[in-house]
Amino acid sequence: MVGSGSRRIGVGLLGFGTIGTGVVKVLQQNADVISQRLGFALELVRIADLDTETDRGVSLDGVRFDSDAAGLIADPEVDIVVELIGGYDIARRFMLDAISQGKHVVTANKALLALHGKEIFGAAKEAAVGVGFEAAVGGGIPILRSLREGLAANHVESVLGILNGTTNYVLTEMERTGEAFDVVLKRAQELGYAEADPTFDVEGIDAAHKLALLIGMAFGAELTYEDIPTEGIVRMTPVDFQLAQEFGFRIKLLGIAKCHRSDDGEESIEARVAPAMVPLKSMLANVDGAMNAVEVKGDAVGPTLYYGAGAGEMPTASAVVADLMEIAREIQREGGGGPVSPLSYQAESIRPKAAVSPDEVEGRSYFRVSAQDEPGVLSRIAGALGESGVGIESVIQRRSEQGGMVPVIILTHPSSEGALRRALETLDGLDCVQAPSVQIRIEEDV
Amino acid sequence: MVGSGSRRIGVGLLGFGTIGTGVVKVLQQNADVISQRLGFALELVRIADLDTETDRGVSLDGVRFDSDAAGLIADPEVDIVVELIGGYDIARRFMLDAISQGKHVVTANKALLALHGKEIFGAAKEAAVGVGFEAAVGGGIPILRSLREGLAANHVESVLGILNGTTNYVLTEMERTGEAFDVVLKRAQELGYAEADPTFDVEGIDAAHKLALLIGMAFGAELTYEDIPTEGIVRMTPVDFQLAQEFGFRIKLLGIAKCHRSDDGEESIEARVAPAMVPLKSMLANVDGAMNAVEVKGDAVGPTLYYGAGAGEMPTASAVVADLMEIAREIQREGGGGPVSPLSYQAESIRPKAAVSPDEVEGRSYFRVSAQDEPGVLSRIAGALGESGVGIESVIQRRSEQGGMVPVIILTHPSSEGALRRALETLDGLDCVQAPSVQIRIEEDV
Repeated sequence: MVGSGSRRIGVGLLGFGTIGTGVVKVLQQNADVISQRLGFALELVRIADLDTETDRGVSLDGVRFDSDAAGLIADPEVDIVVELIGGYDIARRFMLDAISQGKHVVTANKALLALHGKEIFGAAKEAAVGVGFEAAVGGGIPILRSLREGLAANHVESVLGILNGTTNYVLTEMERTGEAFDVVLKRAQELGYAEADPTFDVEGIDAAHKLALLIGMAFGAELTYEDIPTEGIVRMTPVDFQLAQEFGFRIKLLGIAKCHRSDDGEESIEARVAPAMVPLKSMLANVDGAMNAVEVKGDAVGPTLYYGAGAGEMPTASAVVADLMEIAREIQREGGGGPVSPLSYQAESIRPKAAVSPDEVEGRSYFRVSAQDEPGVLSRIAGALGESGVGIESVIQRRSEQGGMVPVIILTHPSSEGALRRALETLDGLDCVQAPSVQIRIEEDV
Repeated sequence: MVGSGSRRIGVGLLGFGTIGTGVVKVLQQNADVISQRLGFALELVRIADLDTETDRGVSLDGVRFDSDAAGLIADPEVDIVVELIGGYDIARRFMLDAISQGKHVVTANKALLALHGKEIFGAAKEAAVGVGFEAAVGGGIPILRSLREGLAANHVESVLGILNGTTNYVLTEMERTGEAFDVVLKRAQELGYAEADPTFDVEGIDAAHKLALLIGMAFGAELTYEDIPTEGIVRMTPVDFQLAQEFGFRIKLLGIAKCHRSDDGEESIEARVAPAMVPLKSMLANVDGAMNAVEVKGDAVGPTLYYGAGAGEMPTASAVVADLMEIAREIQREGGGGPVSPLSYQAESIRPKAAVSPDEVEGRSYFRVSAQDEPGVLSRIAGALGESGVGIESVIQRRSEQGGMVPVIILTHPSSEGALRRALETLDGLDCVQAPSVQIRIEEDV
C-alpha cells in the first residue's frame, strides 16, 4: 500500500456492533482533532456486517454499508481493515485475507491474537503491513504502546495487573455488599457489566489471553495462553474480603508475569492468572469497579502503572482509532509524510488559546479560620462568606486552643475562585479573626 | 542526517551529571534489549562536560570524553545530541547549534522548553530533525507519548496531576509525621529528595513548567508557564492534613489544566498549580513520596492515569533512551528501516522462553481453614502446614460458628507454591477440617 502525497486514508470496518459503532462515533465526532494531529484525514469508506437493519444511531452519509466482507477487504478505497467481529475462525480468515491483499489491519480481538497471533504477525511481516491491537489489552489504556516505546529502554522485570473489568466489578461489589458471587454476577449481567455467558471473564480466560499478549511485548517471549495457569473468581466468598481487610489487603483478580534471569542470562517466565491479595495502600488495591490497571516494572524506570477503562464502546474505540492514526501515518510516510509531531498537533494547528480567568473557575473549597472564641463569632464568619456569595456546606468548630483561639473549619458549596478570594479578604478583615485564614481548593473529579 | 542501511546510530551526551550517568548506564547495561527491539545498536560515541575529573563509576571504553561541547555537536559521528546540562542560556544555545547542524536533539530540560520551546521546536521543524523530551515531564512515565499517540483520537478534556516529586515527598512526610514544612524540607534536603535551593520545586515553578508542556500536547494550545497561576507548598501547615482526612480528602500539589469549549467550539484553557484536596479513594490520593502521577481525561477514553517515578537517575534515563530509540528508528527509516515492531521486539529476537514451574514460585499466602471447634485443632493444623514445609507468620482463630465450626485464618511465611499446594491437600485430609480450605496468594510487591 503506497500512499500518494497526502491523500486521505480509507478505513473499512468489519463488524458493526458496540465497538464498531464507537469507532464510527470517534471518527466522526473527533475528525477535527484527528486531522489536526495527523495533518490529513481518516475516511471511513465502508462497513460490513451481517445485520444491516439495526439502527446504530450514527449517520452513515458517504459510507457504503452492506454485508459483503470480502468486497470490503478487496475494495481499493480501503487501506486499513478493522476487524471487530470477535471469535476465532471467521475473524482469523478475514484478517489473513486482508493481509494477503496488502491491507493493514487493526483488531481488538485478544482471543484471536492469543490463539493465532504467531500466524497473523508472521503474515503481516511477510506482507509488510501494520497490525494494530492496542484495544486488545486494557481497553483505552495505551499500555501496549507504553511497553513498545515508552519503556523500550528497559529490561521489563514484571508486568501484572487487573486485566478484566467484569471480574473487577464483581469482586468490588462482593466486597462492598457482602453478597455471594452468584448474586453479584446476576446483577452485573443485568447492568451490562457481564455477558450472558460470563465464562471467559469469570474463569480468568480473558485475562490470560491479555496476559499472553503482554508477555510477548514485555519479554520478547513466545508463551501461549494455554501455558498460563489460570484460576477465576467463581470460588470466592465474601468472608475472605473482610478477613483480607483485617490483614491489610484487598483481593483482586490479577494477571501476573515476571521474568526470572539466571546468572548466565537465561530467561524464564513466571506467569499466572489468579485471585491475589494486594496491600491496601498499593495503587492496584484502589482500582475499583470495571476499571483496569497494569503495573510494569522496568530495571531502569522502576514501577509504573497505567489505569483506565478496560472495556466499553468509547474507550475501546479510542484505542482502535489511535491504531488507525499510527498506521495511516505509516502509509503516508511512504508518500513523503513525516513522523508524529513532537507536540502531538501539527505545528499549524497549535494556536494561542485564551486562558480562563481564575475568577471564573468554580469549585468547592476548604477554609480554616483562626477566630477568637467568643459568642457570635460563627455568625460573623458565616455572614462574611454569605456577603461574598459563598455558600456553606458544613462547618466544624473546634474546641478553643491556647489564648482563646478557635479554629473554624468550613467546606463551601461550589463557588467561583473570585468569590472565594473576596471571602478570604472579608474574613481576614474581621476583628474576631486572629491570623490569616487558609483556603484550599477541592478537586473532586479525579 | 541520512542513515545508510542499518549502520549504528551515534549518540553524543552534553552534560555528565546524575542523569547523564544514568543514560550511560542504560545504554551499556541494556544494550542487548535495546538492539533486540530496534534491530540495530545505539552507540554512545562522545560525552562533553566541564568536569572531566570526577569518577562517575561507569566504563567509558571507546567513548571520547572531554569538555568540548562545540566539537561534540559538530562531530560527524554524532547523530543525536542529548542535552542534560540544565539551565536556560547555554542549554538553549547548544540545542539550537545542534539543530542548525542537522543533529537530532533529546533533552530532559523542562525549564528550557517552557521558556524557549517555541523557538526550539520551530528550528527543529525547519531543520527536519527530531526533538525528544519525554523525560521533561513525569520522569520515566511515558506520559507525553501517551498523549501524542495512545490518546491521539480524543479531545482531551483535562490533564492534571502530581508533577513534582520533591513537593509530593514533603507533603507526604508532613502528613505522616505532623511536622512543619521547614523541618520536613530540611530532612528532604539531607536525604537528597530536595535540592539545596528548593525554590523551583516548593514554589510550584517546576510543576508549572511541566504543566505548560502538557497543555501544549493535550490541547494544541500555546500557553507559556508565566500564564499559569502558581502557588507552592511553603504555606502548608500540618493541621490542615488532619482536617482534610476528617473530611475525606488528602492534600496534594496539583498541576491542573482543563479545556473549556464554548457552544461555538471556541476553546479556552483553565490552568493552575496549587495545593488541592483530592478524595481519599481517588487514585491520585494514593500517590505517595517522590512518585508522580498524571490523570488524562479524553472524551472517548474517559479517565486514564499514568504513575511512576517522576525524577531520579535511572527513571529519567529510561525516558531519555526511549527518545533516543525513537529518533534512531526515524534516522534508519531514511535508509530503509521499518517502523516500530508491533510486538516490541524484532521478530528474530522473539523466542520461546521456559515457563517457571508454579511449584517454584515463592510468596506469602492466606489460608482459611474451616475446622471443628475442639481442643488441639490448631496444633493439628499447624502440624499439617509444618509437615508440608510451610511456616506460619500469624494465626487468627475466630469464635465458633453454627455447628461447632471455627474458621482458622493463617498468614504463612514465604513458601513455594508447591509446598502451599501440599499443605492444602494435607489440611483437607484432616478429620477436624470440615470444608475445603481457601488459599489466596499475597502479591506484596505492587
